[in-house]
Amino acid sequence: MPAPASKPRYALGIDFGTLSARAAVVDLDTGAEVAASVREYPHAVIERTLPGDTQPLEPETALQDPRDYLEVLVSATRSAVDQSGAPAESIVGIGIDFTSCTLLPTLKDGTPLVEVPSYESNPHAWAKLWKHHSAQPEADRINEIGQERDEAFVRAYGGGYSSEWAFSKILQTLHDAPEIYRAADRFIEAGDWIVWRLTGMERRSLSLAGFKAMAVYEAQGGPEGAEWTYPSLEFFSALHPDLRDVVTHKMDAPLLPLGARAGGLTPAMASRLGLAPDTPVAAANIDAHVATPACGVAEPGRMVMILGTSTCHLMADDRQVHAEGVCGVVRDGVLPGLWGYEAGQAGVGDIFAWFVDRIAPSQALSAPNSDPYDVLGTEAAGLSPGASGLLALDWWNGSRSVLMDTRLSGVLLGMTLSTRPAEIYRALIEATAFGARKVVEAFTTQGIGVRDLVACGGLAKKNPLLMQIYADVLNRPIEVAASEQTCALGAAMYGAVAAGAYDTIRDAADRMAPKAERTYEPNPADVSTYEALFREYHRMHDLLGRDSDSALKRLRNIRDTALGF
Amino acid sequence: MPAPASKPRYALGIDFGTLSARAAVVDLDTGAEVAASVREYPHAVIERTLPGDTQPLEPETALQDPRDYLEVLVSATRSAVDQSGAPAESIVGIGIDFTSCTLLPTLKDGTPLVEVPSYESNPHAWAKLWKHHSAQPEADRINEIGQERDEAFVRAYGGGYSSEWAFSKILQTLHDAPEIYRAADRFIEAGDWIVWRLTGMERRSLSLAGFKAMAVYEAQGGPEGAEWTYPSLEFFSALHPDLRDVVTHKMDAPLLPLGARAGGLTPAMASRLGLAPDTPVAAANIDAHVATPACGVAEPGRMVMILGTSTCHLMADDRQVHAEGVCGVVRDGVLPGLWGYEAGQAGVGDIFAWFVDRIAPSQALSAPNSDPYDVLGTEAAGLSPGASGLLALDWWNGSRSVLMDTRLSGVLLGMTLSTRPAEIYRALIEATAFGARKVVEAFTTQGIGVRDLVACGGLAKKNPLLMQIYADVLNRPIEVAASEQTCALGAAMYGAVAAGAYDTIRDAADRMAPKAERTYEPNPADVSTYEALFREYHRMHDLLGRDSDSALKRLRNIRDTALGF
Repeated sequence: MPAPASKPRYALGIDFGTLSARAAVVDLDTGAEVAASVREYPHAVIERTLPGDTQPLEPETALQDPRDYLEVLVSATRSAVDQSGAPAESIVGIGIDFTSCTLLPTLKDGTPLVEVPSYESNPHAWAKLWKHHSAQPEADRINEIGQERDEAFVRAYGGGYSSEWAFSKILQTLHDAPEIYRAADRFIEAGDWIVWRLTGMERRSLSLAGFKAMAVYEAQGGPEGAEWTYPSLEFFSALHPDLRDVVTHKMDAPLLPLGARAGGLTPAMASRLGLAPDTPVAAANIDAHVATPACGVAEPGRMVMILGTSTCHLMADDRQVHAEGVCGVVRDGVLPGLWGYEAGQAGVGDIFAWFVDRIAPSQALSAPNSDPYDVLGTEAAGLSPGASGLLALDWWNGSRSVLMDTRLSGVLLGMTLSTRPAEIYRALIEATAFGARKVVEAFTTQGIGVRDLVACGGLAKKNPLLMQIYADVLNRPIEVAASEQTCALGAAMYGAVAAGAYDTIRDAADRMAPKAERTYEPNPADVSTYEALFREYHRMHDLLGRDSDSALKRLRNIRDTALGF
Repeated sequence: MPAPASKPRYALGIDFGTLSARAAVVDLDTGAEVAASVREYPHAVIERTLPGDTQPLEPETALQDPRDYLEVLVSATRSAVDQSGAPAESIVGIGIDFTSCTLLPTLKDGTPLVEVPSYESNPHAWAKLWKHHSAQPEADRINEIGQERDEAFVRAYGGGYSSEWAFSKILQTLHDAPEIYRAADRFIEAGDWIVWRLTGMERRSLSLAGFKAMAVYEAQGGPEGAEWTYPSLEFFSALHPDLRDVVTHKMDAPLLPLGARAGGLTPAMASRLGLAPDTPVAAANIDAHVATPACGVAEPGRMVMILGTSTCHLMADDRQVHAEGVCGVVRDGVLPGLWGYEAGQAGVGDIFAWFVDRIAPSQALSAPNSDPYDVLGTEAAGLSPGASGLLALDWWNGSRSVLMDTRLSGVLLGMTLSTRPAEIYRALIEATAFGARKVVEAFTTQGIGVRDLVACGGLAKKNPLLMQIYADVLNRPIEVAASEQTCALGAAMYGAVAAGAYDTIRDAADRMAPKAERTYEPNPADVSTYEALFREYHRMHDLLGRDSDSALKRLRNIRDTALGF
């Protein structure tokens, strides 16, 4: 236990998720969350039509209104600080994390293009949320040209640049709305944009640039010559002549490592937030990534799984390995001094929500005072593995892991007239567990040892059925991090480092991260059935996922033709 | 128009369906239904536990209580006759149809074994409903031995004897409950059993024996020597020594052709029903089959599709062809003097009900005064073919057509986080349309010409979206029969023939069947998209259905192991 400081000091962590932001006031010495507040984005996710409009948006569109981000930033922060009772000057640092790649076009001063009246009716003027998936043709083209030219990013991203990432979204804007591309002085990650709004300085995160925007750390004639580079102008020209100078003209800005101080709060923003001017603000981070120190993970060999609407798998290792199923390998990208690895499952909690809220909400309607997840989960927990005869492939939101293909879609096999909703719910959980096992196996078979598994995120805390199924399917113990809100805590830790309260994020993690709450052990009785089911998952995964002529890809083509896209 | 008789005369048709029976009083001259009454079986379908018991039944079990049949026979008949105001003596003939193969064990006098107290707790003492599917191992064994011995029934049944049919169910009883097998003096189709209860005479239907119990009409040295035979004692011995004499000891009885008089109402039954003693009762018929004359079909080349919980496809042709996908070829089995062909889809309306009632009933709960099928159907009708990206394989109840495999199960491909219940509902309708096209193509490519398609049954009348999709997928016009209740009308027609009011069923159909109500024409704009989707259906059908090592079959094995069966 550290000796109590004479006056307690705090860091503010703000976690911008898919539907809401959460601000937390965290004790700098103990890591205790003393107050927190959640605010939902007024426009949530814009998928069918723009607000006030009736024109249908292209399928797989997912937009947001950046004005929502500022609105909830202010209201959540003020509410959390008010609740905490902490004086403004006791809050010494601010860290933020944001969904990524969530990208918006702005004017030179950072004003979002959507706030310019002549552009507001154009969907490309809005922020494209991470799960905006309609830029797949652009991603395909990027991968084609990247492979032809043997660009460094192809290896760093495990062979596939995602439609979710920056240049897919930018190229889509250039293709579909060249006037927006031209009008955009900047294309910027929403996390970096928030830091800009807070500090008045456009300072970008190295981690965001490395994981999403092709910035690659390459040894140039020896380790001491290593440096960060973007692909060449020729590469961007090959994609589209007008894209040639996109980095230098519309994106280039100082890249800051994790925990670096991006700047201090501007007086105007300090006043809106009720905080002290010049409070240090850390460089932005990726929402899932900040969970790593909050889970107490600050060393190689321990994989963190952040289980939420999607799952992010994070690892650090002292070796650089390029492996299928690893969607990013970035120097210093997860922990300083190590190669950071990210893999992901594009749909997890989102798939359960699809089923529970959209398809089978009757349990909730018929028992209005109970949580429908509990109702289904209780029945599902009573089922034996394999007994439903069901198997699902967890591609409702495409695949971001081994297959890296957003045009894949969900599959459910084995239904009979007796199949019950709880059986489908359990099959969906199992499918995401099989997907997680695919990721872990991709790491271990390609030379990145996974010694421990640490889970965090809402599902890890709230869904013991899911955690037990994961332990059984992976046939490994899984620790669950104790923090309820690892992201806000992790963001606060980076704020503490930016403020100089700790020298490194490891020091912050040692002091501020709580011990693991519990460990799920595999149940030997269920392991062998899941082994058999995983073999079926593996077969269908390759049959429907790897074959470029598979039914799923042909159905997607038929759909796009039917919709006129 | 026939000259009006001085006094109107009526036939009574009683249609025993899966969940209820319907009695109709039909004008003998015009075919008009003057009164009708429906009664549900008190125990419906028994699938999870026996009434009053907690012991779980084996998966795929589907039992009924034969006492329910008599109870609704009496109540529905009395109610219909009362409503009609027809004097007892004006009702000159009775015809019945029943789901098939629905089989029960009885004592010598026809008392169901389930009424014997020492047997009532044994599931095998109950009636096994047509969709009782747990006898697949027995069906596999029957097919294996049948093929080894080149038995005639193998050809007659398109290569596969179904787990739904008589000897699969009987052999299962012998395997799992030998004491019930020994105690059963008779194994009898529920339809034949009702005729026995009505007339006091055990007279069995040639059509039931031909389509479900291996009775085969074989030329023995020339057409004049043709006769009906069952497989040899050696065949039954090879299945199980105790099964050797099953036909002669437990089933043999006079076989009557369609429309023959089985006997007259016993005085006791006449009194219970409120009808005249000795009223002629026709031999039993299969529920779907009686629809043929009621649709006005009494000639070759016109296929009748009876669209209900499952679909039955019926044809008559003057040639005998043995073809894959045809589950029965029976001389005189559909229309006298012709070879009758039956094919089937094991799940149609049942699949929609599974989804609408069991998985996604929220539409009904949130709009309690509207029909959930209408709510989903209205939204589904607004969708374009292919636009959902979904494809289903309609095997929730196994496949009874080309693949003839009850161990297959349902498949749904192409879900995204945006997929809506109405899109799934439409994909399920489309899947059954693709299944229907498989059947029609099986006939036409193997030499049985299908000139016209005539649809009847509840779905044909009530679901215009479904009918239009069928016309588009099949790319053919489809006539819809006018009668609301083709089965009860058809049963009444056979009652009229048994009473001698008409010489043949063709004469009865000419006079009593209404003209087609409407014809659905294919919409050229949708035909090509459905052509593309059908190609995907066809590929997945063969990939998952024909391969004996397919995921669906392996999942079923995993399930059976998990459940301890």
